[in-house]
Amino acid sequence: MPAPLGRVVEMLSSLPGVGPKTAMRLGLNLLSRPAEQTAALADALKSLHELVGFCEKCGCFAESGFCQYCDDTRRELHTVCLVEQPVDVLMMERGQGFRGLYHVLHGRLSPVDGIGPEQLNLTSLDKRMQGGIKELILATSATVDGEATAHYLARRYHDCEIRISRIARGVPEGGELEYLDEHTLSRAVDQRIAWDNG
Amino acid sequence: MPAPLGRVVEMLSSLPGVGPKTAMRLGLNLLSRPAEQTAALADALKSLHELVGFCEKCGCFAESGFCQYCDDTRRELHTVCLVEQPVDVLMMERGQGFRGLYHVLHGRLSPVDGIGPEQLNLTSLDKRMQGGIKELILATSATVDGEATAHYLARRYHDCEIRISRIARGVPEGGELEYLDEHTLSRAVDQRIAWDNG
Repeated sequence: MPAPLGRVVEMLSSLPGVGPKTAMRLGLNLLSRPAEQTAALADALKSLHELVGFCEKCGCFAESGFCQYCDDTRRELHTVCLVEQPVDVLMMERGQGFRGLYHVLHGRLSPVDGIGPEQLNLTSLDKRMQGGIKELILATSATVDGEATAHYLARRYHDCEIRISRIARGVPEGGELEYLDEHTLSRAVDQRIAWDNG
Repeated sequence: MPAPLGRVVEMLSSLPGVGPKTAMRLGLNLLSRPAEQTAALADALKSLHELVGFCEKCGCFAESGFCQYCDDTRRELHTVCLVEQPVDVLMMERGQGFRGLYHVLHGRLSPVDGIGPEQLNLTSLDKRMQGGIKELILATSATVDGEATAHYLARRYHDCEIRISRIARGVPEGGELEYLDEHTLSRAVDQRIAWDNG
């Protein structure tokens, strides 16, 4: 393989879910399509980090100063949904059920990886908690570290007179009991909700 | 999604086997890794077409004038393996059984797509056929168009006093008869080879 193509293939194979064979197919495709198309992708990648930064207030993706959510006055300003990563915000927005604001931790507590509260985006959250927030929804992931992070935050803001909640856990939409793990199922039973007949 | 990220995701989703969800995951990964890494990929892509061209003699990938195979004097100069695309050469070289030279058509005859002999890399092959070539192995694909292309070439070089051969078709390595299509199987029986008891 020519060295320049080899370099591209090697870099592509470092992407998630892209093995050596897929990287090869992608590299060959990029080489066989018109040079302008590949150059356009190169330019878009080159400027990606310059153009997309993080919101100064909440840590979401933002093209300048504040993100589109913090800038949107029609959103519910008193409810903040706390997530681990900027991508989680995109997932939440797909659901279209939530109309409040966000706060992105940019990580989660992980003693094994040496990630403590100082490494998370908490200074600006402390400030936000002082003014006008009525509810903090902890939407960290349902993993050991995500759960530990939620516990830590619930304790940290315990005295703030803010309602603190955790997103529900249970059977996912379309989930058949047969294929669910026992932890999810027993938790779904424990946290069962009274049927509302009317 | 911020527009610059959206542009990257859109371009990535035009790659083979990359759907909108995968493109999103790749785009987010490229945004979340260090800017230098993404910039390095951008640079490698930008210069890909500039650095990798085609061999003037055989049409393989080449970084300058001739490719590594035409430049290699240890290879068997009298045997030429004809393939459709530069990538086919890489596949052939993986097998390590072939030590001759190559010729890349850059396509195959396809009346439907308006691709005739004039659109293929044949002028330089005509010239090569005049000097020193003893065998031309037709390694076009085993499709209708690939087969038609092989027929055309066998006729074109019929009077050249060159041995013309076609790569074998049959049961692929590891292939179980149960899962083979009937055409492959009946051809494998038709073209059976006498057992050599040593």
